[in-house]
Amino acid sequence: MIIPVKTENGAYNIYLARGGLGRAGEYLNLERRVLIVTDSGVPAEYVKTVATLSKEPFIVTVDEGERSKNIENYTRLLSALAANGFTRTDCVVAVGGGVVGDLAGFAAASYMRGIDFVGIPTTTLSQIDSSVGGKMAINLNGVKNIIGAFHQPKAVLIDFDVLATLPARHYANGLAEAVKMGFILDEKILMLFEREDFASPAVLDEIILRAVAAKAHIVHIDETEQNERKSLNFGHTIGHGIEAAGGLKELYHGECVALGMLYFFEREQDRQRCIRILKKLHLPTSAQVDAEAVFSALTHDKKGNGKTISVVKVPAAGQYKLENMSLAAIRALL
Amino acid sequence: MIIPVKTENGAYNIYLARGGLGRAGEYLNLERRVLIVTDSGVPAEYVKTVATLSKEPFIVTVDEGERSKNIENYTRLLSALAANGFTRTDCVVAVGGGVVGDLAGFAAASYMRGIDFVGIPTTTLSQIDSSVGGKMAINLNGVKNIIGAFHQPKAVLIDFDVLATLPARHYANGLAEAVKMGFILDEKILMLFEREDFASPAVLDEIILRAVAAKAHIVHIDETEQNERKSLNFGHTIGHGIEAAGGLKELYHGECVALGMLYFFEREQDRQRCIRILKKLHLPTSAQVDAEAVFSALTHDKKGNGKTISVVKVPAAGQYKLENMSLAAIRALL
Repeated sequence: MIIPVKTENGAYNIYLARGGLGRAGEYLNLERRVLIVTDSGVPAEYVKTVATLSKEPFIVTVDEGERSKNIENYTRLLSALAANGFTRTDCVVAVGGGVVGDLAGFAAASYMRGIDFVGIPTTTLSQIDSSVGGKMAINLNGVKNIIGAFHQPKAVLIDFDVLATLPARHYANGLAEAVKMGFILDEKILMLFEREDFASPAVLDEIILRAVAAKAHIVHIDETEQNERKSLNFGHTIGHGIEAAGGLKELYHGECVALGMLYFFEREQDRQRCIRILKKLHLPTSAQVDAEAVFSALTHDKKGNGKTISVVKVPAAGQYKLENMSLAAIRALL
Repeated sequence: MIIPVKTENGAYNIYLARGGLGRAGEYLNLERRVLIVTDSGVPAEYVKTVATLSKEPFIVTVDEGERSKNIENYTRLLSALAANGFTRTDCVVAVGGGVVGDLAGFAAASYMRGIDFVGIPTTTLSQIDSSVGGKMAINLNGVKNIIGAFHQPKAVLIDFDVLATLPARHYANGLAEAVKMGFILDEKILMLFEREDFASPAVLDEIILRAVAAKAHIVHIDETEQNERKSLNFGHTIGHGIEAAGGLKELYHGECVALGMLYFFEREQDRQRCIRILKKLHLPTSAQVDAEAVFSALTHDKKGNGKTISVVKVPAAGQYKLENMSLAAIRALL
């Protein structure tokens, strides 16, 4: 299955194929210098497969986890590119989750002012969300995604098979973004989650496919997040705040988004529907959060523009609206 | 005088005005948070003028010189933006030469994936060349401009009056880029240099104006250097090599470009014409260069794509052509 993505800054394909990793050379141009960026949590065999299929592979492995999205690793990747003589016709391939994709993508975006970037996402979260859309970023001084670039990939290869090695909590974590897509853009996704056999490969493949297609559409009509793309922040305003605030137990990104969505339904019936789906996926529906810490973190979040914050609300399943909310109103929500 | 620039990623104006600095608020939106980036060589009064006209000014001063285009200063600027709560509606203003513009511009390009950048170039080199076109970059491990972005400014304010404080060698240095524009795109510029009164303010204003207009046109038709914009690299292939190799005395960028042009004229008469103009400007026309060091440096240069290097030749004054030259042929030239 191929989903074509067209943006102002180029067109590319998202290839969805079970077993695609082992045939990566059929989808991607690996006949050049290839910097493979991965993390310590990614099975070594995936990296080895890509390296074997590449003409001149170089590998950089960073530590697993959000903290790796830092300027030191960014510098490390750029140094590796320069030291190995990468030119404008070479490429960077990310094999891993969102952290690896963001870090490698931003390095590719800025090396020689932009060389080819290819994503091979290996988590549900990155397959559904971060691998599509060209938003690359790293963190600085504890502020998430504060440095980055818009840089569309040359191609994305999504192999559902690689999810088999993903721990259950990671697996569910990514599906939270699919739930989000269902509520703002494609109610059919919600219906798939509500099926009894939702955990079967065929249904999950379709859930991921629909979520990726919805995202590709949004990126097509609003690459640089002037309007429609803001809808994808549903669940992220307070979600990022919860994520940044940390707290008693460390929550994953998707888990924070799951919690963050529940503040912004206009109809109680949709909120209840969301809770039912999240429970089915073993995602959290409530958490002890330190309201002060969350509020403080989210006002540092990049979606703020001073006195108000842009938020996304769901008036009815499958629809969204954008609103500017005062800081006071956000504080009251918490 | 206003030169409008239109690119795929936005339109903006270049304002050319004697005394424009003191009226910067008329041309630029300074009614917001403004990070003013400058260097130790820029007269403090220029910075103070911009700060006074800004609603919420913050100033970062880096050391004068190419070495300041490093990742530490880049991180310093981004930290200043984040620490002072800059949002997507705030801006970065560069007050200085090309180093400051490149550094500040790349920080603006990547903070929150891009906020407004305004250039107030204070050298002939930056007024004529680097302030126009949106190519931002920093150096890494001794490789020039290896990390960067295309990020068009929101506006550029060129005040010829600020050149009065520029040392003579700096002044001539920038004019080398105008000579370059004359040879590849606008022979009228050469004729202006050949006038007896070329050093009068009126003629120099016109030289700068024509060079800026020619560059704006090139950026309009080829923002990301796929074709026509490559012409601006005339004199830069070997020029960058000379610059990177350093050598006995440190040459300025424009001086290296002056030397670099002389290798790529197809007609001896144009080469002699170029030499006459360069001498009039007290720019170098020959230098003791270490051919091995220059060759080694230029093969690291980002214009290379492996076995050949893209070079720009001038078949006749006012015209250019692009050619791929083998490394061996380049080596022979030196």
